[in-house]
Amino acid sequence: MMKKVAVLGGTGYTGMELLRLLWFHPEVELSFISSESRQGEALAEVHPHFAGVSSELVFSNSNPEEVPTDMEAVFCALPHGSSAGIVKDLLERGFRVIDLSADFRLRESSLYPEWYGQDHPYPSLLQDAVYGLPEVNRACIKEADLIANPGCYPTSVLLALLPLAREGILPEKGLVVDAKSGVSGAGRAPRQAFHFPECQESFKAYRLASHQHTPEMEQELSDNLGKEVSLIFTPHLIPINRGILSTVYLPMEKNLKEEDIRKLYEDFYSDEEFVKLLGRDLFPETRWVRGSNYCYLNLRSDSRTGTLIIVSAIDNLIKGAAGQAIQNMNLMLGLREGVGLQQIAPLP
Amino acid sequence: MMKKVAVLGGTGYTGMELLRLLWFHPEVELSFISSESRQGEALAEVHPHFAGVSSELVFSNSNPEEVPTDMEAVFCALPHGSSAGIVKDLLERGFRVIDLSADFRLRESSLYPEWYGQDHPYPSLLQDAVYGLPEVNRACIKEADLIANPGCYPTSVLLALLPLAREGILPEKGLVVDAKSGVSGAGRAPRQAFHFPECQESFKAYRLASHQHTPEMEQELSDNLGKEVSLIFTPHLIPINRGILSTVYLPMEKNLKEEDIRKLYEDFYSDEEFVKLLGRDLFPETRWVRGSNYCYLNLRSDSRTGTLIIVSAIDNLIKGAAGQAIQNMNLMLGLREGVGLQQIAPLP
Amino acid sequence: MMKKVAVLGGTGYTGMELLRLLWFHPEVELSFISSESRQGEALAEVHPHFAGVSSELVFSNSNPEEVPTDMEAVFCALPHGSSAGIVKDLLERGFRVIDLSADFRLRESSLYPEWYGQDHPYPSLLQDAVYGLPEVNRACIKEADLIANPGCYPTSVLLALLPLAREGILPEKGLVVDAKSGVSGAGRAPRQAFHFPECQESFKAYRLASHQHTPEMEQELSDNLGKEVSLIFTPHLIPINRGILSTVYLPMEKNLKEEDIRKLYEDFYSDEEFVKLLGRDLFPETRWVRGSNYCYLNLRSDSRTGTLIIVSAIDNLIKGAAGQAIQNMNLMLGLREGVGLQQIAPLP
Amino acid sequence: MMKKVAVLGGTGYTGMELLRLLWFHPEVELSFISSESRQGEALAEVHPHFAGVSSELVFSNSNPEEVPTDMEAVFCALPHGSSAGIVKDLLERGFRVIDLSADFRLRESSLYPEWYGQDHPYPSLLQDAVYGLPEVNRACIKEADLIANPGCYPTSVLLALLPLAREGILPEKGLVVDAKSGVSGAGRAPRQAFHFPECQESFKAYRLASHQHTPEMEQELSDNLGKEVSLIFTPHLIPINRGILSTVYLPMEKNLKEEDIRKLYEDFYSDEEFVKLLGRDLFPETRWVRGSNYCYLNLRSDSRTGTLIIVSAIDNLIKGAAGQAIQNMNLMLGLREGVGLQQIAPLP
Repeated sequence: MMKKVAVLGGTGYTGMELLRLLWFHPEVELSFISSESRQGEALAEVHPHFAGVSSELVFSNSNPEEVPTDMEAVFCALPHGSSAGIVKDLLERGFRVIDLSADFRLRESSLYPEWYGQDHPYPSLLQDAVYGLPEVNRACIKEADLIANPGCYPTSVLLALLPLAREGILPEKGLVVDAKSGVSGAGRAPRQAFHFPECQESFKAYRLASHQHTPEMEQELSDNLGKEVSLIFTPHLIPINRGILSTVYLPMEKNLKEEDIRKLYEDFYSDEEFVKLLGRDLFPETRWVRGSNYCYLNLRSDSRTGTLIIVSAIDNLIKGAAGQAIQNMNLMLGLREGVGLQQIAPLP
Repeated sequence: MMKKVAVLGGTGYTGMELLRLLWFHPEVELSFISSESRQGEALAEVHPHFAGVSSELVFSNSNPEEVPTDMEAVFCALPHGSSAGIVKDLLERGFRVIDLSADFRLRESSLYPEWYGQDHPYPSLLQDAVYGLPEVNRACIKEADLIANPGCYPTSVLLALLPLAREGILPEKGLVVDAKSGVSGAGRAPRQAFHFPECQESFKAYRLASHQHTPEMEQELSDNLGKEVSLIFTPHLIPINRGILSTVYLPMEKNLKEEDIRKLYEDFYSDEEFVKLLGRDLFPETRWVRGSNYCYLNLRSDSRTGTLIIVSAIDNLIKGAAGQAIQNMNLMLGLREGVGLQQIAPLP
Repeated sequence: MMKKVAVLGGTGYTGMELLRLLWFHPEVELSFISSESRQGEALAEVHPHFAGVSSELVFSNSNPEEVPTDMEAVFCALPHGSSAGIVKDLLERGFRVIDLSADFRLRESSLYPEWYGQDHPYPSLLQDAVYGLPEVNRACIKEADLIANPGCYPTSVLLALLPLAREGILPEKGLVVDAKSGVSGAGRAPRQAFHFPECQESFKAYRLASHQHTPEMEQELSDNLGKEVSLIFTPHLIPINRGILSTVYLPMEKNLKEEDIRKLYEDFYSDEEFVKLLGRDLFPETRWVRGSNYCYLNLRSDSRTGTLIIVSAIDNLIKGAAGQAIQNMNLMLGLREGVGLQQIAPLP
Repeated sequence: MMKKVAVLGGTGYTGMELLRLLWFHPEVELSFISSESRQGEALAEVHPHFAGVSSELVFSNSNPEEVPTDMEAVFCALPHGSSAGIVKDLLERGFRVIDLSADFRLRESSLYPEWYGQDHPYPSLLQDAVYGLPEVNRACIKEADLIANPGCYPTSVLLALLPLAREGILPEKGLVVDAKSGVSGAGRAPRQAFHFPECQESFKAYRLASHQHTPEMEQELSDNLGKEVSLIFTPHLIPINRGILSTVYLPMEKNLKEEDIRKLYEDFYSDEEFVKLLGRDLFPETRWVRGSNYCYLNLRSDSRTGTLIIVSAIDNLIKGAAGQAIQNMNLMLGLREGVGLQQIAPLP
């Protein structure tokens, strides 16, 4: 029997992708959808790409009391800040929740005012949230009632660095993360900076040394290394719709050979369905993972400068958001982890 | 049991999409693939977006003698001109063939030198080919041994006009077809005109009054109307990867009301899975059908000028090529027509 | 001595281009600039691309009383609707005005409610405005106090059709104008439809049979032909910043030969600095005129269907707006018509 | 009297920009142009964006014997490798040469086989070449007979780092240069990797730890610091036509304050026309310098990690190639350094 699930917040880019992926998921039934702005309208009215799908779903509002009690998982794709309260209510009503906002990603409540500009409204909940990166947290995710679905940049960077952290050879200092994202990462609400002619034929860095995903990466790396890690993180805006490419630089001991590091990565990810280390001379392009739940990695050790460079590519809306959320749901509901997520990139 | 199929020509854009769609098709097994340029290499070596798919397929050459005899259908995605001879050999060896080139689309062999610049090598085969537009030729397709898969522009234009032709109210003269295509329509071989900086931030018309898809549209419209139809066709190049939007203009009798024409289209396409007339004020955008087998239509009757305008959008590589070919295959093999083709656009 | 000029509305795309072109104009001094939203800020603060220019200009508000009396011309690049009142005040204060809004383009006040959705506030002024297309109105422009600077689409279409209208061989009916514009044509204010991910990798038609530039084209063509002309106009959105390509279709008498029509165009534009008929087989691409005040034309007569096709390309912000406004100013102030406008496209 | 100049290699992107900028340069006359592939054709035939310019220039071949002796400077925009021999001949014939290839940028001939894959054919000439970065080499450039015009990436990186090198506070190790370039940087010859659909909607890193611009940056930084500098350099491909953004990371002593570094940069560049440090919170976007000769810089010191981040933006074809070459020519010919180069970006 199909398991019923709900999506709160189905008009933003992350919500749209959740709706699409869940609609075609062979083992769940998308049964309840909400939207503040388009409440009362039918799915295909709001999203014309659904016009060929004979759906009778209508957007409700996002009031937790409206969510039918037989939902086996509830996805929250609501704006940062406004998600926390709704998640709390959903948990109190007994739902298992996958929250795609940033509201439960940091365990240390004091980081919220520093990086998000406001206090966390329910700091006591932070300890209950499981950080939803299946490649390192699979066991906890299966049992969790609240998943903090990772940020898009952190997903790309953590998958690039976790093998080193787990092996204990990640340097605690000197990490440089230079990351680049497509514009869908900025959300769907129109703003001057993301107006088409302000992005097209341009490229920029933004939020230097102050992006809110920084402490999320440091938290997870520190946890996995067992020591306090700090890094410098610079995000950039690419004039494309989808895709994140992260280029990570680490000072490396010269006696550590590239082939040994490759071996470490291959072993670490050998059983992972969605993380692939490419052949030695093939570096990831974002288009190869566009529309898919894959993360593609490659690395190079430069002995001239003693630097290890790791390049990682994901689709920010799938492995960086909706796809990873469904991967988490699959684990929570006891389904095969990759079910509903096998799509590969429709190139070009 | 899975039905085995082959794809000849798996490195161009059309071939790549055939491989992707067939790989995930639930009722066929992609069993044989060929490529002249990458013969001997494995699927994921040639196409890195397949890296996550545990395929052991290796590209063979395209010699018809290499195609295993248990293939229930063979797709030819070879260049125009070089396809005809291979198709002939495949037919002689008893295969059912879906040819994605232009080599069998025109029934009148005299049109080849005029529009394609060379004589047809096997004119006697032209009468055996079935024009593979399921929405009008479904019965013949089921029985065919050779499908001439329609051109991308013709698919978008014919779906826009066939209801009028079948109803007998398509004007024989005065049709203007202004069509626009993404760059993947030009194929994958690098050429100056499609070098990134020559296309980006630009737009142009090309092959005015001389594009080789013109007689294909005239042939099918004439057949369906039962009178000789002529039209003027201007293709344009959009700096996007995928998508065709055709804007078609017809002089219309003023007593024909827009609501009657809408009714005609709704009825004509009421049982069609892949053709959708949008709501009155919603005109198609190519992104809504990107990555899908859908054709979205809308129309407007302008009483000021006595003009009917029809706008049609498809993904040139799917409904305009690989998807339609698979739709034809499904019919030929007695499968459900839409199986393997339900994907909708991964927006944005 | 440099002639002083003012620009009201210097933060939109048209205003920005006026500021740039006037800054480098060798015979005028940009002396006064205004902006409602950025009043009090310096030019380079508001527009970082001016950072290398040692300007001390500061944005004032757009109150006509603030405009210094020694301005020899005032450009109004204010939103449609809000321009009319300010223009009226400027005229009353004795300024010569070039209005880049649509507020004075239609001579017939009754067309405003039909096409712009509201009554014109000062209909008596409509007869005083000179339609600022130098290629046909040069003499009147020189003497004018109020220039209605043409719309971007009308500029591209009128330059394509005026030789036929003036020669008396433009058909009164059956004209089809299929036009395509970059996104800057929609202005600088962020809106959902022009948010980067909603435009990128997509293409669409909009405002079918109802775009407000239709009566402007019909007015000018009728005037020049001496008979009432009607046309059907469909604008489309190209995912590029700048550029308009118009493809115009006309039924043509079969005895009219393409070489004769070419001769007519060559003669008509032989003395024009900014309109160029390209060689017979070279059709315009928008990139060739990007950043320039040129209009590139070409045409093809299709004897199969009795259709003449004309293709026209301009930069919507230059020949379609700011450049044309400066061309008008040059005429008004007795300067050489092309001064300050010689830039050609910075390809690619 | 106008000074005559020649351009050898006028069909690539760098050559096209030289032709455009020199055509409008008020103090030089573009008198001789060459192209191997389009020899014998007129300027506007080869480059349609010149159609409005009444030029009678015709492309010659690139044989140095054809260059008229009254040329006061000769620009070589020929492919790397094939330039050296022609430059040698030009020098022997007494011309002053500005070479835009890489053939004379490295003083140490042993670096050519390592980074360019072949021996330098005329190593003795390397010592005669002056590295043409006016901001640090102005005096030598004025007297030079042979200018090695800097690479595009090195220009963006050196302008970002030279103030620190000259001040002696650039660290010798630990520099990370993460740079991103538009596709025109790859040249105009069509290749698979730069075919439109292979770049659009994608982003990638390339030539990790092996790009040939690395030793050029190290050479100049070492020279200016007086110590051997090494750096790790990763170039990336942005799907835009023009623009380079370099993000540079340096370990910084914690007692060095951001305001002091800003002061250093402001002082260092206070007399420079083309290098601008933006206001503290305004980080460069490539569009702001597109079509201009400017380099925009900004920096941030992150005390959390002890890192200084510098962001630099240029137009790769202007300050990164043709514009800088003309800036060098201006110096060589005793003209005002910025003449002919005042254009600012035509936004958007």
